[in-house]
Amino acid sequence: GKNLALTGYRKSCWYEEEIEENLRWSFALNSILHTGETRYQDIALLDTKPFGKALVIDGKLQSAEVDEFIYHESLVHPALLHHPNPKTIFIMGGGEGSTAREILRHKTVEKVVMCDIDEEVVEFCKSYLVVNREAFSDPRLELVLNDARAELESRKECYDVIIGDLADPIEGGPCYKLYTKSFYEFTVKPRLNPGGIFVTQAGPAGIFSHTEVFSCIYNTLRQVFKHVVPYSAHIPSFADTWGWVMASDSPFTLSAEELDLKMKKNMKGENRYLDGKTISSACSLSKAVRKSLDNETHVYTEGSARFIYGYGTALKQNQE
Amino acid sequence: GKNLALTGYRKSCWYEEEIEENLRWSFALNSILHTGETRYQDIALLDTKPFGKALVIDGKLQSAEVDEFIYHESLVHPALLHHPNPKTIFIMGGGEGSTAREILRHKTVEKVVMCDIDEEVVEFCKSYLVVNREAFSDPRLELVLNDARAELESRKECYDVIIGDLADPIEGGPCYKLYTKSFYEFTVKPRLNPGGIFVTQAGPAGIFSHTEVFSCIYNTLRQVFKHVVPYSAHIPSFADTWGWVMASDSPFTLSAEELDLKMKKNMKGENRYLDGKTISSACSLSKAVRKSLDNETHVYTEGSARFIYGYGTALKQNQE
Amino acid sequence: GKNLALTGYRKSCWYEEEIEENLRWSFALNSILHTGETRYQDIALLDTKPFGKALVIDGKLQSAEVDEFIYHESLVHPALLHHPNPKTIFIMGGGEGSTAREILRHKTVEKVVMCDIDEEVVEFCKSYLVVNREAFSDPRLELVLNDARAELESRKECYDVIIGDLADPIEGGPCYKLYTKSFYEFTVKPRLNPGGIFVTQAGPAGIFSHTEVFSCIYNTLRQVFKHVVPYSAHIPSFADTWGWVMASDSPFTLSAEELDLKMKKNMKGENRYLDGKTISSACSLSKAVRKSLDNETHVYTEGSARFIYGYGTALKQNQE
Amino acid sequence: GKNLALTGYRKSCWYEEEIEENLRWSFALNSILHTGETRYQDIALLDTKPFGKALVIDGKLQSAEVDEFIYHESLVHPALLHHPNPKTIFIMGGGEGSTAREILRHKTVEKVVMCDIDEEVVEFCKSYLVVNREAFSDPRLELVLNDARAELESRKECYDVIIGDLADPIEGGPCYKLYTKSFYEFTVKPRLNPGGIFVTQAGPAGIFSHTEVFSCIYNTLRQVFKHVVPYSAHIPSFADTWGWVMASDSPFTLSAEELDLKMKKNMKGENRYLDGKTISSACSLSKAVRKSLDNETHVYTEGSARFIYGYGTALKQNQE
Repeated sequence: GKNLALTGYRKSCWYEEEIEENLRWSFALNSILHTGETRYQDIALLDTKPFGKALVIDGKLQSAEVDEFIYHESLVHPALLHHPNPKTIFIMGGGEGSTAREILRHKTVEKVVMCDIDEEVVEFCKSYLVVNREAFSDPRLELVLNDARAELESRKECYDVIIGDLADPIEGGPCYKLYTKSFYEFTVKPRLNPGGIFVTQAGPAGIFSHTEVFSCIYNTLRQVFKHVVPYSAHIPSFADTWGWVMASDSPFTLSAEELDLKMKKNMKGENRYLDGKTISSACSLSKAVRKSLDNETHVYTEGSARFIYGYGTALKQNQE
Repeated sequence: GKNLALTGYRKSCWYEEEIEENLRWSFALNSILHTGETRYQDIALLDTKPFGKALVIDGKLQSAEVDEFIYHESLVHPALLHHPNPKTIFIMGGGEGSTAREILRHKTVEKVVMCDIDEEVVEFCKSYLVVNREAFSDPRLELVLNDARAELESRKECYDVIIGDLADPIEGGPCYKLYTKSFYEFTVKPRLNPGGIFVTQAGPAGIFSHTEVFSCIYNTLRQVFKHVVPYSAHIPSFADTWGWVMASDSPFTLSAEELDLKMKKNMKGENRYLDGKTISSACSLSKAVRKSLDNETHVYTEGSARFIYGYGTALKQNQE
Repeated sequence: GKNLALTGYRKSCWYEEEIEENLRWSFALNSILHTGETRYQDIALLDTKPFGKALVIDGKLQSAEVDEFIYHESLVHPALLHHPNPKTIFIMGGGEGSTAREILRHKTVEKVVMCDIDEEVVEFCKSYLVVNREAFSDPRLELVLNDARAELESRKECYDVIIGDLADPIEGGPCYKLYTKSFYEFTVKPRLNPGGIFVTQAGPAGIFSHTEVFSCIYNTLRQVFKHVVPYSAHIPSFADTWGWVMASDSPFTLSAEELDLKMKKNMKGENRYLDGKTISSACSLSKAVRKSLDNETHVYTEGSARFIYGYGTALKQNQE
Repeated sequence: GKNLALTGYRKSCWYEEEIEENLRWSFALNSILHTGETRYQDIALLDTKPFGKALVIDGKLQSAEVDEFIYHESLVHPALLHHPNPKTIFIMGGGEGSTAREILRHKTVEKVVMCDIDEEVVEFCKSYLVVNREAFSDPRLELVLNDARAELESRKECYDVIIGDLADPIEGGPCYKLYTKSFYEFTVKPRLNPGGIFVTQAGPAGIFSHTEVFSCIYNTLRQVFKHVVPYSAHIPSFADTWGWVMASDSPFTLSAEELDLKMKKNMKGENRYLDGKTISSACSLSKAVRKSLDNETHVYTEGSARFIYGYGTALKQNQE
């Protein structure tokens, strides 16, 4: 008797997200841990039944407790493993702290600059995301509160790996400026050491959704770098396969076995999602997506951009 | 820009209730203030955007901050005003405290017994429902934690007004036993002083929904009392018109003007919803409902009952 | 076993309406009978489980099979019964046909002009709403496809009763021009015969929602007419109490009993919702609403208007 | 203006599915093309905005127009390509016709037996699913209306490939009997020709969901066959990565390049989803899932089964 009633109640409160205009994704809620506004965006921390604690910015799920490791392992490790000796890393965005957490697991890393524009989000994540506390207090981490572009342009030093952990390009907003050919060519590439690698999250990469921004980011990067590798992984809480692109003027040559050896040698702790085989498989896109990426002709420039569905306009100010 | 985003976020979390199997009612949420289980039922306090703080028991909205006054003024005042001199009142249920709060506004009242079975709900409401704190600490209030029927049967004393503030009759559960002819005849009526009045909440009273339990409760009471008055009011947060029935062996004779005079003389503070005209109008049901009540032949007995949609089974244990 | 599965499926498809920004109302669907666009608006006919066939215009429920009689009886009969001998009637809007259907039940009526701007809606309703077919083919009905204001202004003849069966005033749109003091004073009133009555639907009239437009329409009309009577009724499919206002320079004097006698004498068929007592009760608003109407100072003019939540912008063109 | 209104309306009707108890997935609807009940199950054909026409059985999406090719190419082609010369194929289930359609693209195929228990579903799909009409009328297709187990047991002949296109194992129902070790060992394997391959859909294969049934089906098959290959693909309309398992006593040895050559030589038309690389990648599961499959110890037997969330009980009768 009791259980039925409980179930009844437990399904009464829902978080609902419009993945696209005609598609909704709803999680039963345990509680609303925090809601607030920063100078740049709306922020909420929800305790959801299917995906644990969920960070929501401007009505869009950013990361969920149970599967954020897929996103962050995929963003960080392929680039850091392919690099022969990654010592200095620059993160554009990443205020949540999880990207830094994964980077700091690499023993070669001596310095990580995390450059996020929204101080309040960073403070919020520091307080609430227990799993990243150690990373936030690691002496190798330098936290900078600034627009990533301005910061990169003002710095003289170069980095072994630069990581784009930004929101997707948004219609009418300036964030897409961090995805343009000129930004990659004149801001990012000059700040890479020889043999350096750039990697960025690249939006949804599903069989239909990859044309929203993934294929364009890929095509834009191949205008600027000699070697460009798109890869993807299904993230349950995003209700989609997600994409990343890594790019370098040096080739990516390690085999699955070599990647496994490097993980063992260079990294603290064990990955939950990625090993050598998983990286190889992630880089082997399905025929449909591969063909579509090959045929993509659109290049992001300041004057032309493709956007993803429905982000709040507040985000537009995020990286400007 | 900001506002759009805010709006976006603010509509992400929802409380959803199935009013009937095919009908849903959803409120945007600010926060989930509390959730828990008592021995008898599941309980939650939600902060909703359209209706303020909402008390939800077993997945059913019990009362919402912005319009609970309609329910509680309607439950309490018509009976207490029609009674010539109400001094002692017995509440079956009412653990939320709002019914007691309204009763205690009547200056003639010397003693109120509130008999609710669920101690934890009572404690919960004491702590969270600020608006009822004064009532809970009024020396005229005697709080008893017991099944209302057992309590009434064990008491020797009689009351001027007995008020049923119970959950609706539920399928398969014992709560309907507090709505049966035998309960009214052999338990309630003997505990009324001469000229005493019994009044009960009586479920939804809409043009279609009144046949669920309202018409049966009315018909059952007219088997037991000489004068029976059904009345109703629209309660926005319930998405329906709600019903109450008052019953006595003495006639209800006061006019709208006389009711207004008594309110002025006998009550502290001013009603928000009810005055003499509103009471008259509430007692004047629409043709469709009136006809249907006149024709109702069903009488609640232990062996036959009509039920309302979808209450959690936990509630079944509520008043047993 | 089967039934569970059935239930499962039967609740899979839903019609969802945002009553207000933070409040949703959802009906399980049997089927989508028709969807289309007219020159002025989007139109759909849905077969819903809780309320039968439902006409939806621009995402807002206009009328549902099971309870449209409450709306249309309330709009038409109080005015036609209070008028000593209603022969000629002008309907502004009303393309659905139900208002005409109710008018034509009055034996004194010789001529009904129904003036709706949207030919396609009228044709649609003629085809799909079986219950109004007889009305559409009644020889006393004259159908005019025009803007109601232009039509009234172009006509020389006067009417015994003019009925406003229009959409609610909408932000930024011209429809509110059919709710302004100048429209009532210079267009409507001059087209009423001596003793004539104007009645209009007046939006939601719930304890909170009546301040959206109901109180303003009431206050605007009392600037223009000597006798103005607001009244209301709960309409389940609208999830609210609805309001109407009737206005005349002659007083409304009939008692409930006299209204009952006139119904019997002058009308074909029997009302489902209204009789004399129901009309009296409907005209007796609750204390809260009554007080609020008394205190309303806002007058609709071309330059100032209050609006109701969320109507599609297409509607704005509706009556222009 | 119009567009806003349209958008408003277009999002009013929704199909909603509970993927898990605490997770919902909702598609905006264009229309409900058909609903009905067969002897075994509830069936509906919906026209959805995000995924086109969708076949829903007992409240669960079976297949959507825009992405069913991922499921059906994945189910059919790896097995038929790995087989040296597939001439005779037996489909358990598959009444929708899409599995047969993909099989019939292989030029070596001489005979396909499709054995589905639900005649009405087959008739329904024949009428409504235009894309499969050619397959249904192909002379190589033999349609049998029977329980797949009974049919296989009654037949003497053997097949080159046997394909399981059945609903997932369901709690308390008999369908899981078509996923047990004894069924595979004593019914399926004896009906395979030497070098024959068995392949089955194997439920969700996401990073969390693969433990529901995928890992058990895999582990059960490896008790019976020498070579067992699990593989997966993300299917957007299922909101998950899906799994299949192929099994044989002969090894699966073809490389991506060899698979590409065979596709070119042996198949009519071109795949949309699969090529050699895609098959290789699909067979390379992520570290987390691979490890979990390796460690799985559960074996489906008649007496023990694991089940997937929430299927209607009607389905239980489906294959018995």
